[in-house]
Amino acid sequence: MINFETHPDRYNHWKLSYDGAVATLALDVAEDKGLAPGYKLKLNSYDLGVDIELHDALNRIRFEHPEVKTVVLTSGKSRMFCSGANIYMLGTSSHATKVAFCKFTNETRNGIEDSSESSGLKFLAAVNGTCAGGGYELALACDEILMVDDRSSTVSLPEVPLLGVLPGTGGLTRLVDKRKVRRDLADLFCTTAEGVRADRAKEWRLVDHIAKPQAFAEEMKQRAEKLALISDRPGGQGVALTPLGENRLVKVDVDKEKRIATITINGPRDLKMEKSADWYPLRLARELDRAILDLRHNHLDVGLWVFKTAGDPEAMLRLDGVLKASAKDWFVRETLGYLRRTLSRLDVSSRSIFAIIEPGSCFAGTLMEIALAADRSYMLDAAGSRVALSHFNFGAYPMANGLSRLATRFCGEAPEIARGELFDAKRALELGLVTATPDDIDWEDEIRLAIEERASLSPDALTAMEASLRFAGPETLQTRVFGRLTAWQNWVFNRPNAVGEQGALKVYGSGAKPKFNWERV
Amino acid sequence: MINFETHPDRYNHWKLSYDGAVATLALDVAEDKGLAPGYKLKLNSYDLGVDIELHDALNRIRFEHPEVKTVVLTSGKSRMFCSGANIYMLGTSSHATKVAFCKFTNETRNGIEDSSESSGLKFLAAVNGTCAGGGYELALACDEILMVDDRSSTVSLPEVPLLGVLPGTGGLTRLVDKRKVRRDLADLFCTTAEGVRADRAKEWRLVDHIAKPQAFAEEMKQRAEKLALISDRPGGQGVALTPLGENRLVKVDVDKEKRIATITINGPRDLKMEKSADWYPLRLARELDRAILDLRHNHLDVGLWVFKTAGDPEAMLRLDGVLKASAKDWFVRETLGYLRRTLSRLDVSSRSIFAIIEPGSCFAGTLMEIALAADRSYMLDAAGSRVALSHFNFGAYPMANGLSRLATRFCGEAPEIARGELFDAKRALELGLVTATPDDIDWEDEIRLAIEERASLSPDALTAMEASLRFAGPETLQTRVFGRLTAWQNWVFNRPNAVGEQGALKVYGSGAKPKFNWERV
Repeated sequence: MINFETHPDRYNHWKLSYDGAVATLALDVAEDKGLAPGYKLKLNSYDLGVDIELHDALNRIRFEHPEVKTVVLTSGKSRMFCSGANIYMLGTSSHATKVAFCKFTNETRNGIEDSSESSGLKFLAAVNGTCAGGGYELALACDEILMVDDRSSTVSLPEVPLLGVLPGTGGLTRLVDKRKVRRDLADLFCTTAEGVRADRAKEWRLVDHIAKPQAFAEEMKQRAEKLALISDRPGGQGVALTPLGENRLVKVDVDKEKRIATITINGPRDLKMEKSADWYPLRLARELDRAILDLRHNHLDVGLWVFKTAGDPEAMLRLDGVLKASAKDWFVRETLGYLRRTLSRLDVSSRSIFAIIEPGSCFAGTLMEIALAADRSYMLDAAGSRVALSHFNFGAYPMANGLSRLATRFCGEAPEIARGELFDAKRALELGLVTATPDDIDWEDEIRLAIEERASLSPDALTAMEASLRFAGPETLQTRVFGRLTAWQNWVFNRPNAVGEQGALKVYGSGAKPKFNWERV
Repeated sequence: MINFETHPDRYNHWKLSYDGAVATLALDVAEDKGLAPGYKLKLNSYDLGVDIELHDALNRIRFEHPEVKTVVLTSGKSRMFCSGANIYMLGTSSHATKVAFCKFTNETRNGIEDSSESSGLKFLAAVNGTCAGGGYELALACDEILMVDDRSSTVSLPEVPLLGVLPGTGGLTRLVDKRKVRRDLADLFCTTAEGVRADRAKEWRLVDHIAKPQAFAEEMKQRAEKLALISDRPGGQGVALTPLGENRLVKVDVDKEKRIATITINGPRDLKMEKSADWYPLRLARELDRAILDLRHNHLDVGLWVFKTAGDPEAMLRLDGVLKASAKDWFVRETLGYLRRTLSRLDVSSRSIFAIIEPGSCFAGTLMEIALAADRSYMLDAAGSRVALSHFNFGAYPMANGLSRLATRFCGEAPEIARGELFDAKRALELGLVTATPDDIDWEDEIRLAIEERASLSPDALTAMEASLRFAGPETLQTRVFGRLTAWQNWVFNRPNAVGEQGALKVYGSGAKPKFNWERV
């Protein structure tokens, strides 16, 4: 069982330090502390364990340190920034594990960009040594990259020539779409295993700034301070992310035999604003985040997630009112960010998602996002079965495509729908908010059949279908990373040329040359 | 060796007829005339041979029948419109063959939309019987879908539930992005093997019009005539697409051992406008189209295409001037369309593309598009080595992403570049038009090394990398089909759950149930 909770006191791989408006995250990987046995994390390479710490550290900075305006990502080792994902870990992982690992890494990096865009936290990659593969992809997620010009350190994306796989954690996409590197130079760069040194890296737009070793520390300080100037984080007292302990809001029942998880979310009770980790929206985000990650990584064959809610929809609407009224407060802004990123995690989860709406449900406002994220929603046509929208369904939690779930649902042609009104099943169906509304007589059979049928279909076909249907409308860097790049990487990860006995990923480091089937597909 | 040339006299599967402004293409598949042995094309299902005829027929209509304004796609069989790609053909094809087949099918369908958008040819799918899988995907490519309401015919995308693969020839993408079907209804539709009948199909936006059997023919006629009203095709004398015979403009040398093809294109000599299939731009499009298809389908392991040109760049620029002056002429418009679609075919070819520019080359204007489509371009820094741009490099041949190759190259930040001016290597490099400009001393070694190195890399990693780097910038329905949907389908096509001994695609029709590995990836 992989555990996604940690605390800076227990970090093995990152050193987190604070100095006024600047937090520094220095990667100093403990070689022997890999998450699984069988590999050593040499050369500041990472595995899921390293990324779990990064995810935790970013949340600590977001909530516990509102005074931080710039985060510097750098290395605690000399001459080696980060050599990327550990190859031996990849080579020994199953296909599903590799893909789940890459997805989590992707999400954490997208979260860096999300915080930069939406909550004023700026990121500087201070590349103080060689920076390869996933290491460079991490740097690409930052607002700016400063690289040491020491005549030996290089940046590189050596995956294609060395490993026969892609720089798949955003690398290819961010090169051309974010940094606007010319495609032929990107092609050269991505096929040159040894990478490029600082001067050429700057010329090709691979990094923003370069500095000689003796000037590096000072330049890093100045760049971090300059980035801090464009941050609007207010400072003040942080909110400690105390240990979650047992779930209170999110109940997860896993039926291993049927390969179904039922996730029941309790609605809010106490509506007042409270600056604590126990405040409903923040606790909801944290518990839901943990539940999704746990299901994703520890229950690979549970292919259908059935979401239910229990509570008062009007209470949820009132809480959304409180959230809206204080949306400018940094803590509320960070909480909404956590919810936004968690709902986004749901969208890109490779599991079928059904929402079940019954009397006693509270799919309203923020919680209605779960039903809108679902592939299908079933609503019992009976008294007390109600759904409702609030301000927060109209853009506060954008999907990866930049649109609200409502706008995506209606392919940009959303009807006029009242906010704050409770809709019964008939009205919800008319408005297109739910998929089907069986009555008491049909309900149990219809739900049972739908669930059984879903659980019987090819998991691969469903994953690919859902990834295609969930993101209609415009594309963004994020959808391109999750849709296009990830799909190609999944394909490559499944090909004998990469993972067969003589595939490039398998033989890496053994001295043997890979053997390829030369057919182009 | 698959031959992509045919003629209506030799069609096995389509009946092409003309009636004033309306051409009718009736699918009446000859079961026993499959392109390869081992399967029967039952239930109006198709294989590559059926699609080769469709590709030919569309070009005949475009060039030989300028009086046609609407093309009706229908079935020549009773109660069965088309049941999609033949499953047994797919089940017995290699991974590379399946993917190459799907790509060609995709391109032909995109060509339908291209002609509707750019040259006034409108398309009506007259669905006069059951319409499943690829059959419905063909209908989706048309401007309008009319479906018979006979209480038994259905439209369906049964790939996921029946075969464990995707509706991958544009199906998923066109549902939500083109027809704006709500994603939960799309989800229901794509997991319901039996499909939906006419009334629900209309309600869910899967078709535009429905008609009872007795009213179907009249409704089809009226819809076709109505579509013709919005066409601006002028009528007049067509231009016969006479048999190409031997290549005159495009020379292809395949080095099987090194797995490299060298494609040398001769520039234009005669510059005058001539309404014939031998006119340079049209012949160029046809020969290049044939060469690309031949290399793609008959030389799977030739992973690197090296493009050269021979001729006078100024002549090419002058010919572009002639093209521009007569761009409104229907024949020139169709010729530019053929070039546009052929260049687009190059972009989505899963082969590495290098352009080699030397003294005597004529990479100018229209032919410069080849160099701009290349992953890299090498230009010898010597007298007589020149490139040039014309009007046609600035948007006349958009890529699938809707941008010119020049705009895509510079990620939307294209510098000001003069049209009609010949640039030497130094200037071309400064302008960012070429990747590298070795001089005489380095030239041979550098080119040889670059080619050898490219040909040594993992073909899968290159395919996936190129697909990611070639299409920076905005996404369109086309890029989503080729990038996202195709990538997912490639992955599914490679998974044991589809193609393993007990995979859904393999066991289809055998009576056996597929066996799945339930892990979600």
